[in-house]
Amino acid sequence: MSSASIIESWVTNATAWSQAIQQEAIESRKLVTNQAMVMTIAKHQPKSLLDIGCGEGWLCRAAQKTIPSLSTIKGMDAIEALVDQAKTLSPHLAWEQKSYQDLIAGASHNQELYQIISINFALFEKELVELLLLALPNYLLENGRIIIQTLHPLMACGDAAYEEGWREGNWIGFSTAFKDPHSWYFRTMAAWVNLFCASGLILDQMQEPIHPKTGKPASVIFELVPRS
Amino acid sequence: MSSASIIESWVTNATAWSQAIQQEAIESRKLVTNQAMVMTIAKHQPKSLLDIGCGEGWLCRAAQKTIPSLSTIKGMDAIEALVDQAKTLSPHLAWEQKSYQDLIAGASHNQELYQIISINFALFEKELVELLLLALPNYLLENGRIIIQTLHPLMACGDAAYEEGWREGNWIGFSTAFKDPHSWYFRTMAAWVNLFCASGLILDQMQEPIHPKTGKPASVIFELVPRS
Repeated sequence: MSSASIIESWVTNATAWSQAIQQEAIESRKLVTNQAMVMTIAKHQPKSLLDIGCGEGWLCRAAQKTIPSLSTIKGMDAIEALVDQAKTLSPHLAWEQKSYQDLIAGASHNQELYQIISINFALFEKELVELLLLALPNYLLENGRIIIQTLHPLMACGDAAYEEGWREGNWIGFSTAFKDPHSWYFRTMAAWVNLFCASGLILDQMQEPIHPKTGKPASVIFELVPRS
Repeated sequence: MSSASIIESWVTNATAWSQAIQQEAIESRKLVTNQAMVMTIAKHQPKSLLDIGCGEGWLCRAAQKTIPSLSTIKGMDAIEALVDQAKTLSPHLAWEQKSYQDLIAGASHNQELYQIISINFALFEKELVELLLLALPNYLLENGRIIIQTLHPLMACGDAAYEEGWREGNWIGFSTAFKDPHSWYFRTMAAWVNLFCASGLILDQMQEPIHPKTGKPASVIFELVPRS
C-alpha cells in the first residue's frame, strides 16, 4: 500500500466528492456525524481551528457559522482540486494545499499554532498516520487538542476478522461518478487507543455518535491532548 | 438499583459460581479472557498484585503460578463465602473480605500499596464504580497501574440501543444452580473512556481479546495509570 495510490484515488474523485458533500448525499454524515464533529469542536469555544484533510471545506464553513469564538480557521488538504473547490466556495477563509508528508516535514519549524486540530474521516494510512500523530503536537497551542472522527471499528469491521490491517476500498452507497476506490488501514478500537499512547497523546474524551436508524454508533470521535 | 441487591445475588450464587469457575464452565473465560488477563498483568513483571472482586481466587492463583516476579498477592472480595472458598483453595495466599465501600472509605488512610490492581469482570455498579475508581490510586505504588477486564460494550450491547444505563441481568449459559440474577450498569466504550478521564486516570493501553469462534472481541481490557 502506498500513500500515492490513496492520493491518486482522491484526485480522481475530487469533483464527485465535492458534489456528494455539497448535496449531503452521505446519509450518516447528514444525520449524525457532521453535527457531532461540529458540536465536539464547539464545546471548547476555540479561538483557532486547523482542519486537516478538509476536502472541499464543509467543516471549516460549518465551524465558522456555528462557533462564534473562532477568529482563525484554516483548512488543509493534499488534493489541489479540493483545495481549489474550498477556495471557490469560501474565498474569505484560509486554505492551503499540504500533504501529511508536508505537515510531518514542517513540524520542527512550524510557527502557526492552533487551539483545535480537527481530522474528519481523513486517516486512511498506516505509517503516515503514525508519523502525523507524532508531528501534530507541534501545531498545537498549549492546552490545544486534536479531535479525530473516524469509522467506528466495530461497525466498520463487517464480517471480516476484527484485526487491524489493510482492507480493500469500495464506493458502495456512493454515486456511479466515483471510481478507483483506495485501500485503507483498518484499526480496531484497541489499535487506535494504543496508537495514541505510542504517540504521546492522552485520550481525553471519546464519543460514539449514534445513528438514529440503527441505534448503533455511526462513528467514533477521539479527543486527544499531548501528554505533558 | 442498589449495591445491596448485587451483593445479595452473589451471596446466593457463591457456591454455584465457585464451582463454575473451578470447572471452567464459562467458555469465553476458558478460551480467551482468563489468559488475556493473566498475560496483561504478566507483561509488567509486577512485584505486587491486588485483585479486587477476586471471587474464589482463580486470578491470584494463576498469577502466582505464571508470574515469577510476584512476591505479594492479595485477593479481595465482598462476599464472605467466596473469600472462604479462596482461603480453602489457597491458604498460602492473602485474602480479605472487603466491599467496594470499604475500599473507598479506607482510601485516605490506606498503607498497603500495590504495583498492579486487577479487576476482572467485577464492575457492575454505576456510582459505586465511579467512587471506586477515584479511590484506587490511593492503593497504587508510584508507577502502578489498574487493569480492568470487562464485557466488550459492542458485544454486550445485544439488540438494545447502544447507550449506558441499568440492564436486567440473567444467567443464560450458566447452570441451573444459578438463581436471582442481578441488574448491571451497561457502559458504552465512550462511557468507560470518559469515566476514566473524569476519575483522573489515563487510558494507557487497551486490548480487545478475540474469541476464536467468532473472530470478534470477547472482552475489553483497560490499563489505567493515574494522571500525574
